[in-house]
Amino acid sequence: MISSKPVRGTRDILPDEMKIRDRLEQQILAVYRSHGFSRIETPVMENLELLLGSDGGENLKMLFTVLKRGEKLALNPDASVLDLCDMGLRFDLTLPLSRFYSNNQEVLETPFKAIQIGNVFRAERPQKGRFRSFKQCDIDIIGDPTIQAEIELMDTTAKALLALGFKGFTIKVNHRQLLSEVIKKAGFDNEAIGSVCITLDKLDKIGVEGVTQELIKKGYESETVAELMRCVTSINLDNLDQWIADPTAIDELTQTINTVRILANDNFEVVFDFSLIRGMGYYTGLIFEVSYGPYGYSIAGGGRYDNMIGKYSKVSVPAVGFSIGFERIITILLEEQEKAQQIDPVVILFYDSQADNMVDVIKAADVWRGNGYLVNLVAMKKKFGKQIAAWDNGQYVGFLVYGRDEEIKTF
Amino acid sequence: MISSKPVRGTRDILPDEMKIRDRLEQQILAVYRSHGFSRIETPVMENLELLLGSDGGENLKMLFTVLKRGEKLALNPDASVLDLCDMGLRFDLTLPLSRFYSNNQEVLETPFKAIQIGNVFRAERPQKGRFRSFKQCDIDIIGDPTIQAEIELMDTTAKALLALGFKGFTIKVNHRQLLSEVIKKAGFDNEAIGSVCITLDKLDKIGVEGVTQELIKKGYESETVAELMRCVTSINLDNLDQWIADPTAIDELTQTINTVRILANDNFEVVFDFSLIRGMGYYTGLIFEVSYGPYGYSIAGGGRYDNMIGKYSKVSVPAVGFSIGFERIITILLEEQEKAQQIDPVVILFYDSQADNMVDVIKAADVWRGNGYLVNLVAMKKKFGKQIAAWDNGQYVGFLVYGRDEEIKTF
Repeated sequence: MISSKPVRGTRDILPDEMKIRDRLEQQILAVYRSHGFSRIETPVMENLELLLGSDGGENLKMLFTVLKRGEKLALNPDASVLDLCDMGLRFDLTLPLSRFYSNNQEVLETPFKAIQIGNVFRAERPQKGRFRSFKQCDIDIIGDPTIQAEIELMDTTAKALLALGFKGFTIKVNHRQLLSEVIKKAGFDNEAIGSVCITLDKLDKIGVEGVTQELIKKGYESETVAELMRCVTSINLDNLDQWIADPTAIDELTQTINTVRILANDNFEVVFDFSLIRGMGYYTGLIFEVSYGPYGYSIAGGGRYDNMIGKYSKVSVPAVGFSIGFERIITILLEEQEKAQQIDPVVILFYDSQADNMVDVIKAADVWRGNGYLVNLVAMKKKFGKQIAAWDNGQYVGFLVYGRDEEIKTF
Repeated sequence: MISSKPVRGTRDILPDEMKIRDRLEQQILAVYRSHGFSRIETPVMENLELLLGSDGGENLKMLFTVLKRGEKLALNPDASVLDLCDMGLRFDLTLPLSRFYSNNQEVLETPFKAIQIGNVFRAERPQKGRFRSFKQCDIDIIGDPTIQAEIELMDTTAKALLALGFKGFTIKVNHRQLLSEVIKKAGFDNEAIGSVCITLDKLDKIGVEGVTQELIKKGYESETVAELMRCVTSINLDNLDQWIADPTAIDELTQTINTVRILANDNFEVVFDFSLIRGMGYYTGLIFEVSYGPYGYSIAGGGRYDNMIGKYSKVSVPAVGFSIGFERIITILLEEQEKAQQIDPVVILFYDSQADNMVDVIKAADVWRGNGYLVNLVAMKKKFGKQIAAWDNGQYVGFLVYGRDEEIKTF
């Protein structure tokens, strides 16, 4: 017998959860659309060269690649993945959007405000709460170099999260230029920035002491590390000019945070967080992430990536995006059940399976459907009492027996 | 510069079409749900063994397979696809549903009425109107061996098509047992059935003469072929008993067609079509397809597949499904534009990009949003007249200038 399990690291989604997912997706989509964003869609597969040529960071190690078809493969021990495969599954929605924008630029509005809702794929080591196929809900603004784009994205994403019932979340904001400038000013080389950021990213978990130790272990001078840690522990929105010279980065950070704070109206927080890193190599300006309650992971994240579209297009086009991690939202809502609950008005219409009266049964069901009920037709079994008990599963507001009941009965 | 084209045989979906697609998908989903069906979802990837072990017919030649990860591949010239790959992309939604049902049987209702809306993948030779990634909208009833299941599926699918604005379509119905019995009675061997069906499938296109010639060319006796053609040209619902002995198949065909004809209420046709074949090897009983107007392809299709779930489960479970081909629906609706048109109440709120007043601009937009408008914020350019002209693209009901206009202006 063939195994009926889904492929490793993925899962089947059952009707109960699917109802909630569909509703949340529609709520998010409605907020996005009411803010002037338009939905687009790209294929889940992209050319392998495009994926490998991106600044996807760690995600490139987790690519699912698709075997070439219809040609004799050069199967020798030296064959590379590009010899064997020509496509891969997308690992995010940002790279496909950049390709999409270049491919369709002439017919798109400027600035172009895109919605993307779809699954992305990463061959991560399977573990609780991490899936190899997961849904993201992204909005991006392409063609606007000003922080008005960042403000709109934060405002829209925050409204979507508030519409789903989240309250009191925190938007953390940082700036890529600030990060690299401070790290260099502390005395690190240009080449060390990536490695230092990877360690700095752990500040939440291992604290200043842990970060210091790890950096020294990596071989960096203890004085340089100490200087960086002095910055980490004392930098804030009011003393940014002590740490960096670039007034643009300072302005972008402070103006964005101050504006979104007013819009937040005490429903959520906006904070500057110098230890916010975000993995992708392609970010160039402001970066941001949303954390919520006691959950140790972000529920949304994004940033500015001004240099990506230029790879596929003759001109460079500024771009910034914000993505809601749909699986994380769902996980939290399912834990906090009351937010997720909403019972549809579904009834069962039982009918005598011996009767040749499907026409009349369906017409009777249609009358109830016309009154706003969702109606499930079920043939009656001999042991009807037992059958009723089996259907009393919390999914139905009641039932009717065809030809007998005029009103809906509760279980 | 890296190419910005989507992978071969796939395409990018632009905002205009996406709006229509989203609306149609929600309309189909609403009809399905009002008939007691519940949506589920499975991953787009399945284990390769599962896909290869299915009766997928021609589709198995069009599999996209995913390279194994994290292990040293045995790259020698004799390596098979199973040596190199461990997963593949699904080619339909029926096989994943069967696996899903086996995997989750204990927590599912009986009969289980499933909705699946999702993309499937086939490496077909790219040609107009055929894509390598396309969406299907399926409903299936699992656990009901009676034709009440077929009747419900046809009723529900027809209502969905009517809700989308289709009228006057034709549901063609045939029975797999009838097909094989007649072919054998005409004098063909058991082994010939598949090959004969492939030719018979072309009756629409090449006619009786063409089918006769192709079968003789395939090496079958001309008398045997002539006997089959006599049946093809004269068989109808009233003389089925002249051609086959099995009263069950006759009853299933006639009762289903007669019942759905009454439900059709002149909105669509239901006909018996002995030349309807349907490619999949897994069908066991009634098979059906929907044709519409002058379009030379079916817009929906399905049938009974009672033996599939038994492959993954200890017990055999009867099942039947009906799938709407979403891409074909969309293609037709886009050609018959008036059905597809529906302008959203989207307005543009222009604002002075120099002003540091994003808070006030966003609050003004929110007032309009509260009144049911979708509002797109756009920074004003110096040449405002030109800018307005560029935004007059048919997607907006009007525009406002922040701080100036109290009412929406038309372009």
